Amino acid sequence: MVQELLRKHSSVRKYKDYTLTKEEVSELVETAQHAASSHFVQAYSVIWVSDEKKKEELGRLSKNPTQFETAGAALLLCADFHRLKVAGKLQHTEIDIDTTENVLVGAVDVALFAQNLVIAAEAKGFGICYIGGVRNEPAAISELFDLPTVVFPIFAITLGIPDQQNEVKPRLPVAAILHENNYNSAKYEVLLPEYDQTIEDYYRSRGSNQKTANWTKSMAEFLEKPRRPHMADFLASKGFNLK
Amino acid sequence: MVQELLRKHSSVRKYKDYTLTKEEVSELVETAQHAASSHFVQAYSVIWVSDEKKKEELGRLSKNPTQFETAGAALLLCADFHRLKVAGKLQHTEIDIDTTENVLVGAVDVALFAQNLVIAAEAKGFGICYIGGVRNEPAAISELFDLPTVVFPIFAITLGIPDQQNEVKPRLPVAAILHENNYNSAKYEVLLPEYDQTIEDYYRSRGSNQKTANWTKSMAEFLEKPRRPHMADFLASKGFNLK
Repeated sequence: MVQELLRKHSSVRKYKDYTLTKEEVSELVETAQHAASSHFVQAYSVIWVSDEKKKEELGRLSKNPTQFETAGAALLLCADFHRLKVAGKLQHTEIDIDTTENVLVGAVDVALFAQNLVIAAEAKGFGICYIGGVRNEPAAISELFDLPTVVFPIFAITLGIPDQQNEVKPRLPVAAILHENNYNSAKYEVLLPEYDQTIEDYYRSRGSNQKTANWTKSMAEFLEKPRRPHMADFLASKGFNLK
Repeated sequence: MVQELLRKHSSVRKYKDYTLTKEEVSELVETAQHAASSHFVQAYSVIWVSDEKKKEELGRLSKNPTQFETAGAALLLCADFHRLKVAGKLQHTEIDIDTTENVLVGAVDVALFAQNLVIAAEAKGFGICYIGGVRNEPAAISELFDLPTVVFPIFAITLGIPDQQNEVKPRLPVAAILHENNYNSAKYEVLLPEYDQTIEDYYRSRGSNQKTANWTKSMAEFLEKPRRPHMADFLASKGFNLK
């Protein structure tokens, strides 16, 4: 059942020795393309990293070396406005795409596409992991794969046959996500401490890698300092004017 | 089969007279929450617009009045860093989230969540439509739903029992999306004119709303002028510093 498939997702970080074929990768991409796209711009490209050296380098740059090493396929997902520029050129039109709006459109287009790809892959028994770590070194990664201006990496995905299966981590309670007609902030004071307890219990009792941690503490530590402050300059270097 | 479900997606813009229950909406949200989230920040909130007046107003502001009128549920999907600020406060930590990186994290988190929700809904026989049009009037919409600083709308989703089913539009050929090891721009000169022909044939022969159009022409016309140039200022007003 689809709902069960979606609810059993957990990230896989170690894969069995199996390399996806070009046909398998192409089929996943074709399925993924059926996701909605803003005004049908289809502003995404996938770099399938089949070259072992480049795969290793991508793993190093995104600080996930082991995961890329065992992955059956490594995909770099990029927001892509270059193809649209070519479309404009074929129509003898100079198109204007350097806006914050288009950074959002690109990120959303890529993510809808990617989640479709992930679900198609998981339905076939593959496991996956999203790697936001590519945004640690977006300029070096752009160079490694010859990404033109107005094409930029959003995240990578490793996939393959799972060699380990993590438990499903408890999510925030629905009530903390779903608001009716008005944003209601007051409820967090009660819901977040409750959720912390849920997460603490989960980490303490799970099968492997037990630890003492809760959600608000992890978040406070993670976000205490600005994350990836280079991203604005990087996007400017790729031709986007965020002002 | 999951692959077939994903491949038959098309947007629905008119719904039968059926209102989703709170249980149905909650179940979809709970399934959607199982999507991956960057470092588990879960930076999304959903405003379920059950109030008829607000629903009508959201339809008007996003320039999709008819669609919202017939929808069985209208959901406003927001990137949300306010909940994380509360988490920081509970830990007596001032968190720093006003970066371009976090705008991307929010957009991606929302989109992965939303695509899960959409697939769960479509698996149940509902139809859906993404409404990027909420970014036409993001400030007015933020006010309508009392969105705090660092919470901003990315898109809305209408859903319900389809009263019409659009045909599936042909996507770009896989070869135009999928690159192996290197970004390859040269192929577009051949692939895009071929795709234009595919799209022309599709529009000319489809069951309803036939027209003469191709992809590069639609894109050139759509992107000739900058889209939603207010977004940078809007995000600044919501507390993000994109420089």
